[in-house]
Amino acid sequence: MSEITYSFESLRDALRAFAAERDWDQFHSPKNLAVSLSVEAAELLQNFQWISDEQSKTLPRDVVVRVRDEMADVLLYLVRLADKLDVDVSEAAQTKMEVNALRYPVDKARGRSTKHTDL
Amino acid sequence: MSEITYSFESLRDALRAFAAERDWDQFHSPKNLAVSLSVEAAELLQNFQWISDEQSKTLPRDVVVRVRDEMADVLLYLVRLADKLDVDVSEAAQTKMEVNALRYPVDKARGRSTKHTDL
Amino acid sequence: MSEITYSFESLRDALRAFAAERDWDQFHSPKNLAVSLSVEAAELLQNFQWISDEQSKTLPRDVVVRVRDEMADVLLYLVRLADKLDVDVSEAAQTKMEVNALRYPVDKARGRSTKHTDL
Amino acid sequence: MSEITYSFESLRDALRAFAAERDWDQFHSPKNLAVSLSVEAAELLQNFQWISDEQSKTLPRDVVVRVRDEMADVLLYLVRLADKLDVDVSEAAQTKMEVNALRYPVDKARGRSTKHTDL
Repeated sequence: MSEITYSFESLRDALRAFAAERDWDQFHSPKNLAVSLSVEAAELLQNFQWISDEQSKTLPRDVVVRVRDEMADVLLYLVRLADKLDVDVSEAAQTKMEVNALRYPVDKARGRSTKHTDL
Repeated sequence: MSEITYSFESLRDALRAFAAERDWDQFHSPKNLAVSLSVEAAELLQNFQWISDEQSKTLPRDVVVRVRDEMADVLLYLVRLADKLDVDVSEAAQTKMEVNALRYPVDKARGRSTKHTDL
Repeated sequence: MSEITYSFESLRDALRAFAAERDWDQFHSPKNLAVSLSVEAAELLQNFQWISDEQSKTLPRDVVVRVRDEMADVLLYLVRLADKLDVDVSEAAQTKMEVNALRYPVDKARGRSTKHTDL
Repeated sequence: MSEITYSFESLRDALRAFAAERDWDQFHSPKNLAVSLSVEAAELLQNFQWISDEQSKTLPRDVVVRVRDEMADVLLYLVRLADKLDVDVSEAAQTKMEVNALRYPVDKARGRSTKHTDL
């Protein structure tokens, strides 16, 4: 069971202080943060480039460590972008899950990866 | 000031229940989740495709709504991947910020977007 | 004026020989090639992460060299994927331009980056 | 055997005319083109999101058609970016293959997906 130590708020506040101390707000336009988010997501994906789905379920420890590092980068840019756009990303995620529950009713979606528009 | 309503734990637990009810764990290999994360990050980026950095700082409301929806997807796949890999992504982010603080000392990094390896 | 030295065919054939000699066809599933294409496109994008649109028009020579190297990777995976799917990517591109000419009539699209669905 | 109908040059020239007629050069900064390339590569990847490597080797015809359409977009942005940066992307690809031949000698790389830095 994964434990979760830090909150969205504490990450957001730490990122704000980090950028302010370094005068980096000038670089943190939403566009640049969106580019960075996409770049980091691809760096994460790179760790799965040549392995099968099955192999990805039992990753060697050193690969998990590399993936975790890229996940951290994705989260940091996501939290920073949310702050810049004044978006509560946790609430957006909760709302999206409720939308998905309607789009993918259990009886129709069970065991199928079909997109909701084709269900 | 953005408010934050839901915790990582509550999103993780809701995603677990969502997948279990639909028998979707079979599709949620770490590789597939990494692919999905990357795809959603690019869908988010698409909203910034033809606008300048400056324009991205004052997005129309309807664009913010679309971006927020993609941020939700990114977060959901990130939380799901973290759960599958048994990673505490919040702690990884906190650790990464501490690493970045060492890589980018205030006096050297102030006002510069240079990569740490070139500082 | 950029010159163009090699043809799609010669790249395709060289890639076939390269993979055959190394027994790499086993790794070159269309899914893996699509993942690789996306990863390389993001590595290319990384070179533009913190610069403005304007700055990107006058890149220092060393950045152009790095970008060119990533463009090569994108092209190689694209040609390889086309071969595996038996697709003539050059004809697909030509056809797409003809579709785009209909979607974006000169009188409506002139000077506007609006998506065709909103024109 | 896939046939190849159009050359890089003809695509490049058609794209130049297309942009000139619509006064779109103003939007085609190298940064924006790099963003677009990455977005299209992810749209291509989306077609492989929930299928296995094996399944990707025998795609239904309608999926191949969708993938081909995204490959066209990737190629068009790549050719356009090459033109803007005055890069011969075909030569860059040829050169990269020669580099890769040195990095991955047949006797060492045969049947292995290990990265050259770890060979």
